[in-house]
Amino acid sequence: MDNFNFCRPTDFYFGRGVENDTGKVCVKHGAKKVLIHYGGQSAVKSGLLTRVQESLDDAGVAYVCLGGVQPNPRAELVYEGIRICREQSVDLVLAVGGGSVIDSAKAIAMGVPYDGDFWDFFMGSRVPERALPVGCVLTIAAAGSEGSNSCVIDRVVDGVVKKKGSNFQTNVCTFSILNPELTYTLPPFQTACGACDIMCHVIERYFTNTRAVKMSDELCEGVLRTVVQMLPRVMADPRDYDARASIMWASTLAHNNLLGADREQDWASHHLEHELSAMYDCAHGAGLAVVTPAWMTYVYKHDVMRFARFAVNVMGCQMDYEDPEQTALAGIAALRQLWGNAGLPLNFDELGAKREDIDALVANIGGPDHKEGHFVVLNKEDVRRIYQLAADYQRPQA
Amino acid sequence: MDNFNFCRPTDFYFGRGVENDTGKVCVKHGAKKVLIHYGGQSAVKSGLLTRVQESLDDAGVAYVCLGGVQPNPRAELVYEGIRICREQSVDLVLAVGGGSVIDSAKAIAMGVPYDGDFWDFFMGSRVPERALPVGCVLTIAAAGSEGSNSCVIDRVVDGVVKKKGSNFQTNVCTFSILNPELTYTLPPFQTACGACDIMCHVIERYFTNTRAVKMSDELCEGVLRTVVQMLPRVMADPRDYDARASIMWASTLAHNNLLGADREQDWASHHLEHELSAMYDCAHGAGLAVVTPAWMTYVYKHDVMRFARFAVNVMGCQMDYEDPEQTALAGIAALRQLWGNAGLPLNFDELGAKREDIDALVANIGGPDHKEGHFVVLNKEDVRRIYQLAADYQRPQA
Repeated sequence: MDNFNFCRPTDFYFGRGVENDTGKVCVKHGAKKVLIHYGGQSAVKSGLLTRVQESLDDAGVAYVCLGGVQPNPRAELVYEGIRICREQSVDLVLAVGGGSVIDSAKAIAMGVPYDGDFWDFFMGSRVPERALPVGCVLTIAAAGSEGSNSCVIDRVVDGVVKKKGSNFQTNVCTFSILNPELTYTLPPFQTACGACDIMCHVIERYFTNTRAVKMSDELCEGVLRTVVQMLPRVMADPRDYDARASIMWASTLAHNNLLGADREQDWASHHLEHELSAMYDCAHGAGLAVVTPAWMTYVYKHDVMRFARFAVNVMGCQMDYEDPEQTALAGIAALRQLWGNAGLPLNFDELGAKREDIDALVANIGGPDHKEGHFVVLNKEDVRRIYQLAADYQRPQA
Repeated sequence: MDNFNFCRPTDFYFGRGVENDTGKVCVKHGAKKVLIHYGGQSAVKSGLLTRVQESLDDAGVAYVCLGGVQPNPRAELVYEGIRICREQSVDLVLAVGGGSVIDSAKAIAMGVPYDGDFWDFFMGSRVPERALPVGCVLTIAAAGSEGSNSCVIDRVVDGVVKKKGSNFQTNVCTFSILNPELTYTLPPFQTACGACDIMCHVIERYFTNTRAVKMSDELCEGVLRTVVQMLPRVMADPRDYDARASIMWASTLAHNNLLGADREQDWASHHLEHELSAMYDCAHGAGLAVVTPAWMTYVYKHDVMRFARFAVNVMGCQMDYEDPEQTALAGIAALRQLWGNAGLPLNFDELGAKREDIDALVANIGGPDHKEGHFVVLNKEDVRRIYQLAADYQRPQA
């Protein structure tokens, strides 16, 4: 077990109707004027935005609004948010939406008190000393941004979309309001993408070279098993509260780093996916469903027994004691089957990615000596082969 | 799944040598002058207190010291701590010790900014609006006070020791410094008592009537399995770092309420034990080893399948599909065997409790209409029968 620091001070409100307390929670955390940040029209049409605004009105909290966050959120809107917050003396950014909205809100919150360009924090040249507090009303269980220190933003540089992440303690939400009912109306594809993202946040942590991490391995497997069990339930019945609730809380636990604080983590699959969603603007969870099993197939021989354990403890496979490698492969196959059954793409074609772009994807990920991952350290040739595996994969005939 | 609020802002530093950063961590959290609060001579003799003081010196943090906290910490020392903090303008209470020291520190921290008697917070008549920040350097994995909102204090009222708990958000430690190596030198009995307390914090949450709590059930079982596996290891080799580390982090997770925020919890066994340690000044974990299996034996028929699940998923028993009740009972027997093998008492005699005191124990727990627990709501006759089961239990012949 590695030494670690763990601090996640987020104040969580979880359950039916909790979004109606948004105003009170803002007051509790000292907000007087908030920027309500949101995405497209779904938050408007569903009436959620109106309820949040009424809650703020009732609590005497002033607000300004900035909608229009798109999936794979863009830097341009972050600049606009920063400008509005400064002009309007906003003291808290309230994200009403999913991971993209929360990440855009986090970037705005970083930028407001900073004299320079907020993008500095994404290029690794600066660490934010402070940020405005961020609260969220979550509408999709996926990114885990409601409990994590992560923030991912896209920016067009020389005509190419660059996707950059930042991981800072100041990115952790001050409060997060999680009502599973708000996810009832998600399109099935988004629900499935979210579940995949959740599982991949755990998988990036689960496959580690750090030994003696039984405690957090148990937590990892518990969160993964929960999603494995609940994903088919929400696909069958989108209004299954208990399944929605389990997946929503799993999304938070999967990525607040409780499951990986004590270990070296991998993150190669996420980075390979980021190149896909940067190039194709595809859903992050969909890209992960294509890349992650390809990565697993490429690296499983590094630790066959850990992959066998994943197969048995997470995917419910039988252990083959005479040939553990078959068990490892069965686990990867079962994962693909779970995701495929939920309507997720499993190869380049199904995702809308092109085999002939692999050179560009590999070029975009970094310079000639670029390395990815920790479970297995990958060079650019390894990365190419993983993309090729992701392109080549064919679903088994029924 | 029940609606819930969950907020545990503690800043954790975990691993080898982290206590040497205590001064820096105090500075990070704004402390200028701390009260170092500790128990007996072990913190002095081991050199830990000196290292903590040197760390504070190096960081330019002033301090005063107050030792002498005893197990089942007393109100008298809390009053003294409050007086010292006020006189010396202390701005943070630093507990160096286990649950008793941390709880004493929490009570001091509550009392300092309060005009009235701190005991009001334990009699249920007041809720603290604020408290001094509390930090800790943990020396035993047991109470979970390093991550919980709990604080338990004893006070002598009319010649009788009254043990009272308080659960407030202001009780949550600002920071906790957890080095598993500091537990290497614990006497085996204390190690075992700690592991029992950890398991019982989970058991109080695991046996619930709340349905659809798969996510947190998984976390409960994972923490319990970790202790079940690691307890024999630390009994065999007190310097097994990985086992000590697993148990220490388990102690935090068992009681920071992540495992039970979404459910009704029981706590009857804890309350029945509190009467034992109030009367006999026995170790809390030892009392729990006697009471909890008796409680389990008394209530298991309320939900045989949950007890069977505990037996299979936690204690590693085989499921008897023809007679699940036998599986449930086998789980309780396996738990007693685990604890008995670790040197814990399993009945009144072994604890040093007396059968003839049962009337007094039952009288002390509350008035004639007093109720205990939630999994099964117990009246005073039920409580009597559980104490009798705890007195009657005999270890199976080898």
